Amino acid sequence: MAVSDDRVPVPDVNREMCPSRRILEHVTSRWGVLVLAALLERSYRFSELRREIGGVSEKMLAQTLQTLERDGFVDRDAKPVIPPRVDYSLTQLGKEAAEQVWGLARWSERRVADVKAARVSYDDEKARAAASL
Amino acid sequence: MAVSDDRVPVPDVNREMCPSRRILEHVTSRWGVLVLAALLERSYRFSELRREIGGVSEKMLAQTLQTLERDGFVDRDAKPVIPPRVDYSLTQLGKEAAEQVWGLARWSERRVADVKAARVSYDDEKARAAASL
Repeated sequence: MAVSDDRVPVPDVNREMCPSRRILEHVTSRWGVLVLAALLERSYRFSELRREIGGVSEKMLAQTLQTLERDGFVDRDAKPVIPPRVDYSLTQLGKEAAEQVWGLARWSERRVADVKAARVSYDDEKARAAASL
Repeated sequence: MAVSDDRVPVPDVNREMCPSRRILEHVTSRWGVLVLAALLERSYRFSELRREIGGVSEKMLAQTLQTLERDGFVDRDAKPVIPPRVDYSLTQLGKEAAEQVWGLARWSERRVADVKAARVSYDDEKARAAASL
């Protein structure tokens, strides 16, 4: 009667097949990050969201929203009107992820100059090392 | 003498070509997330990091570390010993990103049950909707 046989292992994103790895991948996906961060500020209609997030295709946005909806992060509200109107917003669970992702998005914007400086210094060093060979 | 002509636009991750979008992509990349989160806990040698992060190939890990080093997030310390020993750790800038990414990783692990429940409910609803057609 070993109870431990039935136990689900403790979630660990470093284990390749752990479900938590998939969750982390969804909230940090290329478009998932931007969708969550946008929805933290307000709800959006599909077409508005597509305009807001530069470079996303209709297909990728639809797929991203569906993944986030299925995970329980995004609420899809289809109004029975003509023409059809669909609003997307965050669930409580989605807000938790979005707050952290939003922080990373703002941090990335704040740190542009620091990262550019780091790259110049890295490239210079590589060039000097190559020249001294 | 319009000063505004010379001005760099305010960073905005939603603009496709903004450098901040690239930074966000690097810190939220499939392996970048896991590398940053691991390095927040301690410094690692390459082979240790590869063992720690399930599923990463040698090539992808090397590429991820190089991108993070060039951005100024990771410090690479090659010891002049035989056999060669290389330690990776976070810079101060890298720590800022890693703290947020670490939070997301732990959140993903904590929320596995909630996300599983959301998926069951989503799939049930889709099945019911299909059956009622």
